[in-house]
Amino acid sequence: MKLPGQEEFDVYSAHENVPTGELDSGPGSGPGPDGSSDTGVPKDPLLFIQLNELLGWPQALEWRETGRWVLFEEKLEMGGGRWSAPHVPTLALPSLQKLRSLLMEGLVLLDCPAQSLLELVEQVTRVESLSPELRGQLQSLLLQRPQHLIQTTRTRPCWGSARPREASRDEEAPLKEQRLNSLRQKLPPGAEAGAVLAGELGFLAQPLGAFVRLRDPVVLGPITEVPLPSRFFCLLLGPPTLGRSYHEMGRAMAVLLSDPQFQWSVRRACNLYDLLAALDAFLEEVTVLPPGRWDPTARIPPPKCLPSQHKRLPSQIQEVKGPSARRGSPAEDRHGHPPQAPSPELQRMGRLFGGLVQDVRRKALWYPSDFLDALHPQCFSAVLYIYLATITNAITFGGLLGEATDGAQGVLESFLGTAVAGAAFCLMAGQPLTILSSTGPVLVFERLLFSFSRDYSLDYLPFRLWVGIWVATFCLVLVATEASVLVRYFTRFTEEGFCALISLIFIYDAVGKMLSLTRAYPIQRPGSPAYGCFCQYPDPAGNESQWTRTKPKDRDDLLSTDLGLVNASLLPPPECVRQGGHPRGPGCHTVPDIAFFSLLLFLASFLFAMAFKHVKTSRFFPSVVRKVLSDFSSVLAILLGCGLDAFLGLATPKLTVPREFKPTLPGRDWLVSPFGTNPWWLSVAAALPALLLSILIFMDQQITAVILNRAEYRLRKGAGFHLDLFCVALLMLLTSALGLPWYVSATVISLAHMDSLRRESRACALGEPPSFLGIREQRLTGLVVFILTGISIFLAPILKFIPMPVLYGIFLYMGVAAISSIQFTKRVQLLLMPAKHQPDLLLLRHVPLSRVHLFTAIQLACLGLLWIIKSTPAAIIFPIMLLGLVGVRKALEWVFSPQELLWLDELMPEKERSTPEKGLEPEYSFSGSDSEDSELMYQPKAPEINISVN
Amino acid sequence: MKLPGQEEFDVYSAHENVPTGELDSGPGSGPGPDGSSDTGVPKDPLLFIQLNELLGWPQALEWRETGRWVLFEEKLEMGGGRWSAPHVPTLALPSLQKLRSLLMEGLVLLDCPAQSLLELVEQVTRVESLSPELRGQLQSLLLQRPQHLIQTTRTRPCWGSARPREASRDEEAPLKEQRLNSLRQKLPPGAEAGAVLAGELGFLAQPLGAFVRLRDPVVLGPITEVPLPSRFFCLLLGPPTLGRSYHEMGRAMAVLLSDPQFQWSVRRACNLYDLLAALDAFLEEVTVLPPGRWDPTARIPPPKCLPSQHKRLPSQIQEVKGPSARRGSPAEDRHGHPPQAPSPELQRMGRLFGGLVQDVRRKALWYPSDFLDALHPQCFSAVLYIYLATITNAITFGGLLGEATDGAQGVLESFLGTAVAGAAFCLMAGQPLTILSSTGPVLVFERLLFSFSRDYSLDYLPFRLWVGIWVATFCLVLVATEASVLVRYFTRFTEEGFCALISLIFIYDAVGKMLSLTRAYPIQRPGSPAYGCFCQYPDPAGNESQWTRTKPKDRDDLLSTDLGLVNASLLPPPECVRQGGHPRGPGCHTVPDIAFFSLLLFLASFLFAMAFKHVKTSRFFPSVVRKVLSDFSSVLAILLGCGLDAFLGLATPKLTVPREFKPTLPGRDWLVSPFGTNPWWLSVAAALPALLLSILIFMDQQITAVILNRAEYRLRKGAGFHLDLFCVALLMLLTSALGLPWYVSATVISLAHMDSLRRESRACALGEPPSFLGIREQRLTGLVVFILTGISIFLAPILKFIPMPVLYGIFLYMGVAAISSIQFTKRVQLLLMPAKHQPDLLLLRHVPLSRVHLFTAIQLACLGLLWIIKSTPAAIIFPIMLLGLVGVRKALEWVFSPQELLWLDELMPEKERSTPEKGLEPEYSFSGSDSEDSELMYQPKAPEINISVN
Repeated sequence: MKLPGQEEFDVYSAHENVPTGELDSGPGSGPGPDGSSDTGVPKDPLLFIQLNELLGWPQALEWRETGRWVLFEEKLEMGGGRWSAPHVPTLALPSLQKLRSLLMEGLVLLDCPAQSLLELVEQVTRVESLSPELRGQLQSLLLQRPQHLIQTTRTRPCWGSARPREASRDEEAPLKEQRLNSLRQKLPPGAEAGAVLAGELGFLAQPLGAFVRLRDPVVLGPITEVPLPSRFFCLLLGPPTLGRSYHEMGRAMAVLLSDPQFQWSVRRACNLYDLLAALDAFLEEVTVLPPGRWDPTARIPPPKCLPSQHKRLPSQIQEVKGPSARRGSPAEDRHGHPPQAPSPELQRMGRLFGGLVQDVRRKALWYPSDFLDALHPQCFSAVLYIYLATITNAITFGGLLGEATDGAQGVLESFLGTAVAGAAFCLMAGQPLTILSSTGPVLVFERLLFSFSRDYSLDYLPFRLWVGIWVATFCLVLVATEASVLVRYFTRFTEEGFCALISLIFIYDAVGKMLSLTRAYPIQRPGSPAYGCFCQYPDPAGNESQWTRTKPKDRDDLLSTDLGLVNASLLPPPECVRQGGHPRGPGCHTVPDIAFFSLLLFLASFLFAMAFKHVKTSRFFPSVVRKVLSDFSSVLAILLGCGLDAFLGLATPKLTVPREFKPTLPGRDWLVSPFGTNPWWLSVAAALPALLLSILIFMDQQITAVILNRAEYRLRKGAGFHLDLFCVALLMLLTSALGLPWYVSATVISLAHMDSLRRESRACALGEPPSFLGIREQRLTGLVVFILTGISIFLAPILKFIPMPVLYGIFLYMGVAAISSIQFTKRVQLLLMPAKHQPDLLLLRHVPLSRVHLFTAIQLACLGLLWIIKSTPAAIIFPIMLLGLVGVRKALEWVFSPQELLWLDELMPEKERSTPEKGLEPEYSFSGSDSEDSELMYQPKAPEINISVN
Repeated sequence: MKLPGQEEFDVYSAHENVPTGELDSGPGSGPGPDGSSDTGVPKDPLLFIQLNELLGWPQALEWRETGRWVLFEEKLEMGGGRWSAPHVPTLALPSLQKLRSLLMEGLVLLDCPAQSLLELVEQVTRVESLSPELRGQLQSLLLQRPQHLIQTTRTRPCWGSARPREASRDEEAPLKEQRLNSLRQKLPPGAEAGAVLAGELGFLAQPLGAFVRLRDPVVLGPITEVPLPSRFFCLLLGPPTLGRSYHEMGRAMAVLLSDPQFQWSVRRACNLYDLLAALDAFLEEVTVLPPGRWDPTARIPPPKCLPSQHKRLPSQIQEVKGPSARRGSPAEDRHGHPPQAPSPELQRMGRLFGGLVQDVRRKALWYPSDFLDALHPQCFSAVLYIYLATITNAITFGGLLGEATDGAQGVLESFLGTAVAGAAFCLMAGQPLTILSSTGPVLVFERLLFSFSRDYSLDYLPFRLWVGIWVATFCLVLVATEASVLVRYFTRFTEEGFCALISLIFIYDAVGKMLSLTRAYPIQRPGSPAYGCFCQYPDPAGNESQWTRTKPKDRDDLLSTDLGLVNASLLPPPECVRQGGHPRGPGCHTVPDIAFFSLLLFLASFLFAMAFKHVKTSRFFPSVVRKVLSDFSSVLAILLGCGLDAFLGLATPKLTVPREFKPTLPGRDWLVSPFGTNPWWLSVAAALPALLLSILIFMDQQITAVILNRAEYRLRKGAGFHLDLFCVALLMLLTSALGLPWYVSATVISLAHMDSLRRESRACALGEPPSFLGIREQRLTGLVVFILTGISIFLAPILKFIPMPVLYGIFLYMGVAAISSIQFTKRVQLLLMPAKHQPDLLLLRHVPLSRVHLFTAIQLACLGLLWIIKSTPAAIIFPIMLLGLVGVRKALEWVFSPQELLWLDELMPEKERSTPEKGLEPEYSFSGSDSEDSELMYQPKAPEINISVN
């Protein structure tokens, strides 16, 4: 026997005598009432609630399950013979009030010791108001087996024809249908059931209400559709009324039981008054919609994220769970209170290489587990996914780099470099989830560097080697001086400027390269001279045929000249060459139809990639198919483009791939010679571009690192900003020496990597999004991905079937996707929207529209300035200009108030941390909107990509 | 002086002494509490409610308007300095309860005779609990001028710095800002205001509540932001509390006042208890959302249609308004009870031409008004819009018809015929809103007829003349026998089969014609023989140059033969011809790049048209711009396509347009000769195809007529099914004799015509969609449109710049748009959706998914069968097969229950009308879901196009 107060931490013990099968629930397996599950305190089990309704009075009485609840309500759609989609339950206020008075007058049994349905029914019907005869009738009715939808799917057309049957005791063992119910798989182990039985019964003279909390939950035979042990049992019967009021009362009871706080209270209630108090507390907190403005039959879909319970839970539970539920909400950072202390990884040690040493120490502890934690099947699919994404990236960037550097780099270098650098990074880095890749900014810089060296006739690869050596040196200095702590000054303003500029360069380049194809393969307008071509053979004497060698004055002249050919035919040029002739005439070098077909391929691959990406939010196909289509959108778009090209078999320009394993640039060794034909002093002068590239690499690497190590991903093994930069520096040295592309962390692909390694609560109750538990942090998946990439070098020959326009299309897609993901773009769109059509952004509730527009305009102006610089010969200094964004952002503090910047951007670190709070207080106490927003503040935000060109 | 009961119908008299300006409100100008406004009974005026809140205690007390209500709530977003979008208000239950107790203890003045704010304030503060000193303080506070957002937009940054000022009596005249408030334009004349003043006041010891209904509404100085006469005044003040409870009580009061039923009751309340009873009645009906599952700060956007009030309104008002509010709901028809009697236009007279005579009599009465009613500026824009749509249609169909009939018809005939037939129909028809046009089905038939006559070498136009004569005869027989009453057998099943088949033919044809272009302009693959072309001149002696006339064995042989040319050049073919030469070689007839460019034009015009159509639902640009872009989507897409084509200047195939005003077929007269080269008996044999065409015309015409005359359009002048068919028959005769296309009513364009003539309530309260009053039924707009079309014949020469691929793109767009608009397509999509992702269709709540799929599968099978028949030589009999759909539908009654058919289709007329009801009763009493759906049943449904190829 336990005392009532004792059971508070004994909820699990009740399961021991229950045949629920696999009880492998460690602490933290089922979602608790507040959705957080990493606190380690035993929580109340999840409750599945079912409403059985008595239908068919008076001819064919039967119980039928008409509703069920875990988090949201599902209604039985009798006509449709199926369950409705989960939705937010709506109640009528009178039904709650009627329920309250019925409970007050009825029977309330707390900690009822019944061990079976029969015992329970006997206890419940032991009411004075019932005559013995009535009691017998009622008991047999309650023992009758209810109709569940799982049972009736086959026999639906014969409703009501099922004769009422007496339930015998041996039916209390779980039935076959109950066992087979797929719903059970969705409920976490240890879940309990609550059964609400409601209905109208003609032979009752007065209402009969009973609420039972069982001491030990037991499986109540066939009452519930899943064979879970029932904890609560509620009976609401009464004489017939108008308008199904017992149905509504039953729903009200079920909704109450599905409320976490009511559940919490009623599990601990000692008597009727505790129960009523819990009901009253529920009523205090309900949201009321006025009748004239809201159709009560409209079903509200479940919200994307549940309101947090931290304000609602009783204090004793909140002390334990409150902080954890609130941890990791980025909105909270945005809001500024409580001010977030800088993460320990970003605290300055004050010693040379202090940060690096600290990083190495911290990560060394986890090193063995970094391999052991990978032993999970999920890692296989992660490897496949990231491998495909990585080679897509390697192909795209390799192809583009090959073009940008006139073949000094190429697809082969891209594969080799990705494999070597990626694998090395995975083994050494501070954040091993990072996927190294050629990124947009570095590609842009390399292009500029190449055109610079071409303009001054430099030997590119040796020059580049020195740039790499200097960059590595500068990066080591940055590591030594713990410069990574400065990333706190990279606010969203900087990130967005960086991302927007690079995205625009991508878009501009993709379109530009596409248009340059139409110059290479000109469109043949009527009357354009590029029409004629014939095949000329040498005459038997070996001389060319009689070409009249009168010098033509101009092109038109040439065309109208009598040619006087003898040994000529109209064979197409390739055929002509094969037969030993020479194609002659202005039309021989034009390949018709290529320009428009390339344009079609370009548009098609762009649109396919966009469409596949958006399949995720469509209603069609099962979720798995949608996820695959969406995740592999680029790969699929490339494949489709190649298929279309192969189908028509036109001579579109294709990716250049070397035939054997040797550098793309003919005649060079794998190891780049340190000087080549360059003068010696160039090795010193290379320090200047290296400085610029160092800034770029630092920004690119650290912005990505900050995003990856955000609190919302709940990483346990910590970050390693200094160690990451150190590795990048070493790899710079290696890749420069071998003439491979340069690598830094890539945001999008690393986020995808983390996403594919999410640990989530397995049991996802109906309508509830699965709750996020953390990431499988380990080094093995990345390592395997890069080993596979290395092996894929031997697949390179099949890459020569990829048409360049398809790659340009993917390039355009990457630019468009990146620029659409940032808040800046949303604010630019606001400029085009009439105020009344603007979406209800939190931002707009707090900052006047004109100020939002001003902020956007300043960002646009910065972007315009950066673009202009990029277009001048001074383009190569654009990394400094990017860094200048930090300064502009600092200057904005003179234009905007801290509150405004808090909403538009985020606050920069200050010397005195108290300033922003002081600045905030007046607004918040005065506007009075804190009660409105505080809820929104605590909503967990889904990890969101906001900088993403890689 | 009036007695309290007397004022019930005197609400308008109160306005007489009020300077609200233009009081031109006839009955029905403002939306009534139930949204219907054509009942002619004086209704309560609209109420604008405003919440003024006391902020800044204790330093800088000021009143500030923080919320306003008409139908929905708008909140002041202080930080953003703007009004939120209108949303459904949500309340906390305790605030309603606190409000109730405050009202119970407070002062309630009904029919207060105060004439000014000062008098009112004096009356309100005459409470015993207040000391004289406190009363003075309170009075001066209440007279203080509140801050409205309209006043503070300029001076926002200096909140709280505005010193409290004493309001003097002369401030009670409307202020300049109040007058200039644009909100006032949105409120209907006669609207009244309600002011709620709430706040926390430190010097009050106990709460102070007052509710005042003014006997005569007066403008209360600057209290409300619009200078409306106030009817209600509510004061809720008290000592400071936790959590802004007076703000919430103020909101609760405002929401109550904005509820139509509460407003109705409180306008008629005689004492406090009536007021409290109204509040309790409100509470009885509220919808409650549980706290754990719904975030109370989330804003719910206004629903698309408000829940109808017919169940809520007190009985005395419901008797008048209930039926009218329910009239015209298509969902009601679908639901089947009350069974809708056939409309009087479709009742059989039982005499030869009885229906026609009846139609003529009915329409003759309205004839003069059919011209007078057109005198409204709205008709100008309607003319412009429909004119553009009509000529777009005439161009598209003319172009297609020209191709289908090898030039026997053309664009010129299309323009002329449209103008003549359309104008004649507008003058004579039973439903003058109808726009006559070439429709898809008739076009399809004409194509089949032409290929038939070509196969048997018939003289097409004379043959067609006889078909026309016979069709006219058959149609006259149908008119005489009142066959139009049979349209009741055309259920949605038939309509959808008809529409789907025609749409698919459109899509198939558009794609087919596009692909045939790639055969006409072949793509040049590498190695394709179509490469060489040269220009050969006759030698001075006039002989052709020395072509070696050895017979080549095959093509390849020809190409590799030595040509031995002397007088030849590589000029492009057109240039060559101009210089007197002959283009020679296999490559001369291929025009490169045309195939892919045509494909690009085709896709571009299709995608542009789709994109423009969807601009309507985007957030960008003001509504007017969006509407224009969406309404003129086809025109804009054609213009863009032409622009793209003209920009590149390629020789794409263009629309053939005759150079002068004569029939497209060379050598024929306008009047078609009755026999031509055909044998005489063909005039008799033409009766057979004519029978088929008659079926098609009857179905096409009548399905459109049924849709146009649906109850939801609230047409007052009645329909004329028989007269319409009679006119179509006469016009068949005319157009056949002149060799012009055949015309019947076109659904989409006629619906667009009606839509452009909608009369709507001018004043649209915030968040409420404007209510629909009816259509400007007249004959003039149509007539003007067709006169303009006639004049446009002289614009025809510029039409030759339209590339055919653009027209094919528009054609594809029309097919896709038509097939997407039918429910059948939605059900086909269901086949691809996993059950849990399916939308929450009413249909699916009532019919098991397997039955829905069965019905869809049967429809698909019918469609497949029709398609197969269409592809055989028996294609011409497809109209009979379409009619067969009616039979299939009848047979479905053996497969599906009446309930299922009611949801999937609609019921066919029966001999005994009671059968469907008997069939319905069991389900509805048993499933118990009537309470759920009955609300949805009465929601007004927006007129919807569900058959639409024209």
